[in-house]
Amino acid sequence: MNHRTPAATVGIVGGGQLGRMMGEAAGPLGVELVVSDPTPDCPAAPVVRDQVVGDFDDYEAIRTLAERADVLTFEIELADPDAMEQVGEETGTPIHPDPGTLRTIQDKLVQNRALEEGGLPVPTFRQVDTAAELRAAGEELGWPVMLKAREGGYDGRGNRPVEGPEDANEALEEIGGAALAEELIDFERELAVMGAVGDGETRAYPVTETIHEEEILRESVTPARIDDAVRSRAREVAFDVLELLDGRGVYGIELFETTAGEILVNEIAPRPHNSGHWTIEGAGCSQFEQHVRAVLGWPLGDATLRSPAVTANLLGDVTDPQIAELTGTEAILETPDASLHWYGKREVRPLRKMGHVTLTDDETDRDALLSRARSLVESVSFN
Amino acid sequence: MNHRTPAATVGIVGGGQLGRMMGEAAGPLGVELVVSDPTPDCPAAPVVRDQVVGDFDDYEAIRTLAERADVLTFEIELADPDAMEQVGEETGTPIHPDPGTLRTIQDKLVQNRALEEGGLPVPTFRQVDTAAELRAAGEELGWPVMLKAREGGYDGRGNRPVEGPEDANEALEEIGGAALAEELIDFERELAVMGAVGDGETRAYPVTETIHEEEILRESVTPARIDDAVRSRAREVAFDVLELLDGRGVYGIELFETTAGEILVNEIAPRPHNSGHWTIEGAGCSQFEQHVRAVLGWPLGDATLRSPAVTANLLGDVTDPQIAELTGTEAILETPDASLHWYGKREVRPLRKMGHVTLTDDETDRDALLSRARSLVESVSFN
Repeated sequence: MNHRTPAATVGIVGGGQLGRMMGEAAGPLGVELVVSDPTPDCPAAPVVRDQVVGDFDDYEAIRTLAERADVLTFEIELADPDAMEQVGEETGTPIHPDPGTLRTIQDKLVQNRALEEGGLPVPTFRQVDTAAELRAAGEELGWPVMLKAREGGYDGRGNRPVEGPEDANEALEEIGGAALAEELIDFERELAVMGAVGDGETRAYPVTETIHEEEILRESVTPARIDDAVRSRAREVAFDVLELLDGRGVYGIELFETTAGEILVNEIAPRPHNSGHWTIEGAGCSQFEQHVRAVLGWPLGDATLRSPAVTANLLGDVTDPQIAELTGTEAILETPDASLHWYGKREVRPLRKMGHVTLTDDETDRDALLSRARSLVESVSFN
Repeated sequence: MNHRTPAATVGIVGGGQLGRMMGEAAGPLGVELVVSDPTPDCPAAPVVRDQVVGDFDDYEAIRTLAERADVLTFEIELADPDAMEQVGEETGTPIHPDPGTLRTIQDKLVQNRALEEGGLPVPTFRQVDTAAELRAAGEELGWPVMLKAREGGYDGRGNRPVEGPEDANEALEEIGGAALAEELIDFERELAVMGAVGDGETRAYPVTETIHEEEILRESVTPARIDDAVRSRAREVAFDVLELLDGRGVYGIELFETTAGEILVNEIAPRPHNSGHWTIEGAGCSQFEQHVRAVLGWPLGDATLRSPAVTANLLGDVTDPQIAELTGTEAILETPDASLHWYGKREVRPLRKMGHVTLTDDETDRDALLSRARSLVESVSFN
């Protein structure tokens, strides 16, 4: 492997905060990024070589990326696998992860089936296209059930608990059609494992505990505050998931730890993930550098813990969209073990992810670290 | 202090590796950089918002930076203090460090005089404009002496030991005029302290040991392998130096530890410095993030040690300039505690700084860490 200038170039469909943090990680490696994103001057733009303005399914934009890049990847599930596949065939530019993997993951029903067929533990689920099917699923799985849109949901959008048969019509209308119903898991906590598939090697980061509210990730705690049996089971499941996936890259594997101590796979993200942001300060090699290394087929970096870490998201605390201006950041900047990450979004909207703060601590009192992170995030405001 | 988008913008005269690493550090803070540099597509270009192509004394380029920036700074001593001062007056854009500080530092004679007048310990020196003055200085200080060009020297260029009076003519011709002669210091080792001057606060990083060959920095070891008395004296001297300097920013303070255990100030860099590259992995806040915080007047970051660190430079091991292509980098990428930093220079030249590698280790065997860093750097080549 040779480092050279002009540097190796990675083309990324999507230029949001994940693309931005990939850009921040790629510089030291001598890797240049080109991103495509529909928003002119997207979050990644100021820190990457170039942005092509185009939608996530814009064939021309994706083709431009592929022509400039040594490898094509994506940082958002809305990337169009068909367009990427076609461009890959036409230009010969390799694509990682495999568009087929993305296609499977884009459809939660297909994803669940693939996991189940692969022998992975998943919540019991049923395909649901009509209210009658939803009512039948509820009878079978037991009310309430979790209704999920098969495609396009994120940050809780597209997910809706359904209390009983009387809610079936309304719930399905809200979700807007093609859906699946899952048994509502009585979980002790949610966990996540960031995994990396390289050229003939696979690594997993330590198990992270993720804390959601209104189905949006608020905080992560690493290592997760769980017992060793649960931890090793979570890692085992994560490695099994990575075996099923085609193509190199970083994958976010979201898990449930049930009250019975079982591990179930909730869902997979074929890209760096919010639950892995702690790796920037807390691991040897961040998930973003890891993704760049992985898609290029370079040796994977050190996925071991450097320091226990808590990450708290900076979410839009506004009621209406407005120009983003965060006040009170001194408190974060003055905290010695706090790292601020700002995503550069122009507009703040209710609960929009605007940045995050990571606290690291060589002491292992993660409860205290979590309360400090919460206080810091509560001390700043967009109002 | 408010974070906002469009972000705070820092204009930097110079876009070499120091500007590039400032860019890599500024992204997470939500700070955008604009650099001016005479080389189109300079090292910083791929990771900053924009480059203005212009020489370091190009008034128009500097004015363009100042008009776009909240604060103007520089990453190279060749930045023109007069042009910056004029632009600062015309645009009202603050400049840090103060151009006056840069002016003092640019002239090694003036720098030494300022340090001496400030009560700082410096090698004995004499102004030398003619061979006769050089011979007189040699008689007074004792041969050999170190002859230094007053302006423009770096990486050993502009420095030349003079063995005796018979070499005076040739030495002065080589240096090309205005010079100073210094007593040749019998030093135990060279040390450096990175200091930061913020808005009403001053911090110093742990003392670093720097290892030079042919007057070019090869490796740094932090914390320096010195006894506690020397360490605290070095820090004391560093804080005294910081008191003398006008304007906020990061300063590199290069020191001699004499065989008698004394600390002398060798020279000051009014910017992040090669001897502080270890801070990216080894300190809470890197010297690059620190410089950005300092010039903006934001709270300074954590300058304490996170982990012992050794940095080794990747220097051009070629005899003639050629397109840069480094082979064997797998060895670096596969080493778990090694971090590669590539500067993105197109052309490699003999002994040109092309990148660096930092090894961190929670164990404190810095001798072993240093040999490992040397082996890694020796395992790659531009040939």
